[in-house]
Amino acid sequence: MTDHVWTTRKDTGVKKLDKADLQRIDAWWRAANYLSVGQIYLLDNPLMRTPLSKDHVKPRLLGHWGTTPGLNFLYAHLNRVIDERSQPALFITGPGHGGPGLVANTYLEGSYSERYPQISQDADGLRKLFKQFSFPGGIPSHVAPETPGSIHEGGELGYALSHAYGAAFDNKDLLVFTVIGDGEAETGPLATSWHGNKFANPATDGVVLPVLHLNGYKIANPTVLARIGQDELDALMRGYGHTPYVFTAGFDDEAPESVHRRFAELLDEVMDAIAGIKAKAEKQGAQNAERPMWPMIVFRTPKGWTGPKKIDGKVTEGHWRSHQVPLSSARDTDEHLQDLSDWLSSYRPDELFDDEGRLLDDIASLAPEGELRMGASSYANGGLRRIDLKLSDFRDHAVKVSEPGGEIAEATKVLGTWLGDVMRDNPDNFRIFGPDETASNRLQGVYESTDKQWLGDYEPNDEGDPMARVGKVVEMLSEHQCQGWLEGYLLTGRHGLMSSYEAFIHIVDSMFNQHAKWLKVTNEIPWRSPISSLNYLLSSHVWRQDHNGFSHQDPGFIDHVVNKKAEIVRVYLPPDANTLLSTFDHVLRTTQYVNVVVAGKQPGPVWLSMDEAIKHCTRGLGIWEWAGTEQPGENPDVVLGCAGDIPTIEVLAAAKILRERIPDLRVRVVNVVDLMRLQDAREHPHGLSDREFDTIFTADTPIVFAYHGYPWLIHRLTYRRNGHDNLHVRGFKEEGTTTTPFDMVMRNDLDRYHLVIDVLDRVPGLSSRYAGLRQEMQDARLEARMHAYEHGEDIDEVQDWVWSDSGDTGKSKGGPQTTGGDND
Amino acid sequence: MTDHVWTTRKDTGVKKLDKADLQRIDAWWRAANYLSVGQIYLLDNPLMRTPLSKDHVKPRLLGHWGTTPGLNFLYAHLNRVIDERSQPALFITGPGHGGPGLVANTYLEGSYSERYPQISQDADGLRKLFKQFSFPGGIPSHVAPETPGSIHEGGELGYALSHAYGAAFDNKDLLVFTVIGDGEAETGPLATSWHGNKFANPATDGVVLPVLHLNGYKIANPTVLARIGQDELDALMRGYGHTPYVFTAGFDDEAPESVHRRFAELLDEVMDAIAGIKAKAEKQGAQNAERPMWPMIVFRTPKGWTGPKKIDGKVTEGHWRSHQVPLSSARDTDEHLQDLSDWLSSYRPDELFDDEGRLLDDIASLAPEGELRMGASSYANGGLRRIDLKLSDFRDHAVKVSEPGGEIAEATKVLGTWLGDVMRDNPDNFRIFGPDETASNRLQGVYESTDKQWLGDYEPNDEGDPMARVGKVVEMLSEHQCQGWLEGYLLTGRHGLMSSYEAFIHIVDSMFNQHAKWLKVTNEIPWRSPISSLNYLLSSHVWRQDHNGFSHQDPGFIDHVVNKKAEIVRVYLPPDANTLLSTFDHVLRTTQYVNVVVAGKQPGPVWLSMDEAIKHCTRGLGIWEWAGTEQPGENPDVVLGCAGDIPTIEVLAAAKILRERIPDLRVRVVNVVDLMRLQDAREHPHGLSDREFDTIFTADTPIVFAYHGYPWLIHRLTYRRNGHDNLHVRGFKEEGTTTTPFDMVMRNDLDRYHLVIDVLDRVPGLSSRYAGLRQEMQDARLEARMHAYEHGEDIDEVQDWVWSDSGDTGKSKGGPQTTGGDND
Repeated sequence: MTDHVWTTRKDTGVKKLDKADLQRIDAWWRAANYLSVGQIYLLDNPLMRTPLSKDHVKPRLLGHWGTTPGLNFLYAHLNRVIDERSQPALFITGPGHGGPGLVANTYLEGSYSERYPQISQDADGLRKLFKQFSFPGGIPSHVAPETPGSIHEGGELGYALSHAYGAAFDNKDLLVFTVIGDGEAETGPLATSWHGNKFANPATDGVVLPVLHLNGYKIANPTVLARIGQDELDALMRGYGHTPYVFTAGFDDEAPESVHRRFAELLDEVMDAIAGIKAKAEKQGAQNAERPMWPMIVFRTPKGWTGPKKIDGKVTEGHWRSHQVPLSSARDTDEHLQDLSDWLSSYRPDELFDDEGRLLDDIASLAPEGELRMGASSYANGGLRRIDLKLSDFRDHAVKVSEPGGEIAEATKVLGTWLGDVMRDNPDNFRIFGPDETASNRLQGVYESTDKQWLGDYEPNDEGDPMARVGKVVEMLSEHQCQGWLEGYLLTGRHGLMSSYEAFIHIVDSMFNQHAKWLKVTNEIPWRSPISSLNYLLSSHVWRQDHNGFSHQDPGFIDHVVNKKAEIVRVYLPPDANTLLSTFDHVLRTTQYVNVVVAGKQPGPVWLSMDEAIKHCTRGLGIWEWAGTEQPGENPDVVLGCAGDIPTIEVLAAAKILRERIPDLRVRVVNVVDLMRLQDAREHPHGLSDREFDTIFTADTPIVFAYHGYPWLIHRLTYRRNGHDNLHVRGFKEEGTTTTPFDMVMRNDLDRYHLVIDVLDRVPGLSSRYAGLRQEMQDARLEARMHAYEHGEDIDEVQDWVWSDSGDTGKSKGGPQTTGGDND
Repeated sequence: MTDHVWTTRKDTGVKKLDKADLQRIDAWWRAANYLSVGQIYLLDNPLMRTPLSKDHVKPRLLGHWGTTPGLNFLYAHLNRVIDERSQPALFITGPGHGGPGLVANTYLEGSYSERYPQISQDADGLRKLFKQFSFPGGIPSHVAPETPGSIHEGGELGYALSHAYGAAFDNKDLLVFTVIGDGEAETGPLATSWHGNKFANPATDGVVLPVLHLNGYKIANPTVLARIGQDELDALMRGYGHTPYVFTAGFDDEAPESVHRRFAELLDEVMDAIAGIKAKAEKQGAQNAERPMWPMIVFRTPKGWTGPKKIDGKVTEGHWRSHQVPLSSARDTDEHLQDLSDWLSSYRPDELFDDEGRLLDDIASLAPEGELRMGASSYANGGLRRIDLKLSDFRDHAVKVSEPGGEIAEATKVLGTWLGDVMRDNPDNFRIFGPDETASNRLQGVYESTDKQWLGDYEPNDEGDPMARVGKVVEMLSEHQCQGWLEGYLLTGRHGLMSSYEAFIHIVDSMFNQHAKWLKVTNEIPWRSPISSLNYLLSSHVWRQDHNGFSHQDPGFIDHVVNKKAEIVRVYLPPDANTLLSTFDHVLRTTQYVNVVVAGKQPGPVWLSMDEAIKHCTRGLGIWEWAGTEQPGENPDVVLGCAGDIPTIEVLAAAKILRERIPDLRVRVVNVVDLMRLQDAREHPHGLSDREFDTIFTADTPIVFAYHGYPWLIHRLTYRRNGHDNLHVRGFKEEGTTTTPFDMVMRNDLDRYHLVIDVLDRVPGLSSRYAGLRQEMQDARLEARMHAYEHGEDIDEVQDWVWSDSGDTGKSKGGPQTTGGDND
């Protein structure tokens, strides 16, 4: 890492801004605007050295002009500042629609052609640059993975600031210049992401500089923040912990030089203020650094600035009509063609590009050099910065077991002790993000090595809590914020995980979608280096929210995830503490995946020794011979499948009943850790071949499968398998409430007694022979329910294998809660 | 509706607050707190008239104390205000964990026992009240549907204020008292929902009074808003458009009377301010009413207020340790049992309840009467207030077709014209909510009858835009906000729909979950009246986001929805304008469902006359004889199934090719509108019986099915069908980018040419006989792609049936965009 110094402009010793400086900035801006308009409209004649004809215009005009000139303005000015202060910077484009702008700027600075040599810095390259934009076989219209310098697509709005803070954490030298559209500012995730400043340390983290791009309009409406008084807007920004610097331009005839001078001076003032904050924090020291009022910029300019003032008599510049493609008939009507020609000419391209189509040297000199160019920043291609985690031996944290189920452990708590080691050994590039649930999910072991980073106020009562101004756990009650932070952290080359309740991870369904899409596309871009996988640890899962009730019970995130490309998604359901350890050791080593790990936090049996667990996890699924009753060389009469910790308990309990009550029944027990193993090898890289599947599940034996989530997912994964017609799945069928843990499984027919009945019903001949056992099972269910309804707890029989502690009240530990909240 | 007058206290003529008033409030508060603690801990001995023993304590202690005393305090004070001013009010409990508090208050006011007579207002009722809480067979721990007066569960946090504004719209007499936990305040949806005040009209809508319950802690962390300076918090609230009234209590030894007096006076001041705003708006008139700075209350009190100060030497009151069950060993240790006994006794139950266990009359008199009791409000049981929509004849808006596909229409635009009628005829109880996409989704016809409600500032450029201070379309760029508003609107007895892009509706996956769960539970509660269905109109769908690219392409919301209970969810894919009309006429008449309707906004063929469309929609699916080539009485050689507008176009084009090129092939075309028809009749009320399914799809003929979304959903819905082994599904397989519309379908092998190849591959004998046709189809695909890559648009051949206008640029309309934004 460079030994960067945050300097005031005075410190840099550069000369006072003069006219030439401002003209250079203006020329860059015009060039970027020209290239932006060119990309949206032109198929050919990129330098306009001949009169524009209809053939030069694209047949389908696709793109978004409205936000683009503002982005270009900011990029131009930032170039100067970065260059003068040697300031590493990342440009986050909240209004991702402004794709043409970011492409234009990275092309002008040269970083684009370095990535895409065919888009050369000459007339031919320009022509290709224009044609490819939003064109079949070309590049997307947004600031997509294809765009150099981007870690943020901005197609779905709301995450610019969360990504920015994620990028800034532990990158103390980095300026994250973050443009927030005023449309985006209306989204929920963005509205809360301003509070990221309560979690960023001015000494050890980078600086997020938010720019609220107040251009006034969305697709077809004014924006809220553009239509409240400036006093309210100021108050809002101050309330968010920022000092607003307000800049307004473009609404009158102010000369360009004056506009640029005002903004350049404002930007210097802001950068100087940041340098002051950094210097103060340095002096206070990281452990004592106080949260400052960080600067932010309100950038109020017209939508479609510099574009046509009116089209067909209707106001266009400064109106939502500029949002997309204002001159939509440029190829169809002479009038619009002329308008387009006038518009392009207004940027005076002849003063910008030479006869070969190269940007004039003086203008090009505005850009910083090398990696300081924002399109060339390694921060925006995080895989380049990524260093493998140092992972200590997880086997040291194994739960020692003498026999299957002989030991009881809280799986996530055991994992937490090892994660504590990981945090100790990787203090600068591994973080855990979570919505106030790290301790509730029993990962408190990490606090042996680190703290929760907190830059809010402190109170005397905080003593004893693992809060500090520097810490690698970051908790805010917003899944959006946590997810965005983690994404930004990973995209800039680091590692981490998100810990959440299973039900509420649906809150970020759409963010997961976008990240999975990003990964899919980057896999196809050679210059994008692989980044660390995004890891979810989902606990407090559907079967152990009996005390919080129905609203907290939902296992559907897995279903959502498996809709995405097979090469991206992985789902693990480790049944105990040791398999969870092994699973996490694996996922923390992977790149370019989304790994979903669902694990229990309650005390539960440990079934496998560490060595067995490693083997089992490596295979992803396997027959547990010790749990079944089949004889070598014989086919089983029934296969009991299970995936998930609670289904595994119930299946093993059912197998025990069958073993005792029908000793001659040949039962095979199969446990699945890696859910994708069930899918066809042709559909998922982890998928079993049909032959392998048949070897394990057989092609013709009844299978009773107890699954953690919605049962139909297992059908979906296996519908092409030979044995599918014999497959009977139990899972969560949306029957939940506040009750006891065992009543929860009974309500969904996933309990041991019902599984025994399922076996009796499905293995030919058993039903009639064992009518008595069937009745007994039904009676047992009734008894268990009656007991729960009367006494409020489960009967002892089903408390074997650890139902007893599930109430989250610490009861069986014989003491009050003292280590973090338990459950929300 | 009552002819309510918003009054200042002075206007009401009630006497000045005296000591007795304040004592009554305090007594109510103590009673509510006592009942809350009792619910969490006690199995018996509800009046503590004998010494507490371990047997009186529940074996599993489940619930949340922390937020409860604050809620109880607010409820007590609000009782007085409601009573004095005859003010209809709804209490929205953002911190839904405070379930015991709301149960306690509604019990005290009598509305609980009216709903649940077995929970009588005597000692026996008290015992049952205590036992049932968070107990198997009892009631949930949250403010759930079972709780009288609730429209908001609050298990998943973030939606209290959106629900509140939804409830307030068009309920001008209603006060929506909305408690927001400071944990919830950190969520994204809540953070933006404050801006609801820019959409509420002070004359025609009700009043939302937000109370930020600043008790300082979440599960295991302090909250952000409690740990910023009061100046920042004030600024934030002012920035949100509110005047904050700050109340702090509980951190010192202030006498209860003084505490109550201060809050009572503050609440009167706030209510008087509201009355002033209402009076002013009345004077200005609805069309000119200005957005005021609405009051809000910052309510800073200790978490677990009045609970144990310390437990085992650790600070508990005013700390996160109060979040859940602070005395978790009350049944296990003498010390904790004594603590519990002391805690309960501190409320002096003997002064609150008589020997029979009835609340003393004087205390009970604090509650208002009848429906003014918040637990008895019909606003909170909206089905009681619901009036069927007046629906004019949608057939008047039908597109007249002479032959299938003979007319071209934009389906959603046609729907919009009829919805305009609906809005005209139901001006007070029908609204459309959307994230800035109503016009983009082509529903602009509604602006013939109404406007977009907008209380932000106006500018001269707004002229001509359908914005007004009163309007029934509400647009803010937050799917969360729109969904929350719609839910609140429906839950209080009105009708509406949400219009959104298909891909981004995933943003509210989790909100949908919670609403679906709410509906499922209310179905089981006799006193809950049915509310209108929640209707989604999803347009700008996966196949027509070719210009916005991959980030905008996702059809997975349907998959998400069908995980919920079959009796709740309905999914429709009308293939054209007339079927869309018929579908919407149906869904607007339904109750207690979530209806998902996916429809195109681009010009597309109209296949069916209105009469045919009605019949087709009534059946939900059907054979389109005119499109196929089967002979009466003969079985088809192949079935081409389709669901969705684009798949329908491609299937019909494929059928045409087959008709022309293999005239003797007997092809059956089946179109599916109601997706749930595919499911088994035993699994979904709309499901076909196996016999019906076989009649339509056959049991043994190859089926090539072109589906709008992810193909495996069709497998999931049909895996038990006889014909399933012959079913081959094409759909979106996550291959998207910025390209042409036809390239989009080609990338996913859903195009007509590929469907023909699929038929050749699947009907025995065809593959070898028609090798030439196969090659031709492959050539046609190649040619179509090459053309697109070269020219940027689709070839004419595939532009039949309306590809041409899909670029959203208005090109083929030969003019510029003038009617609202087109696409984001």
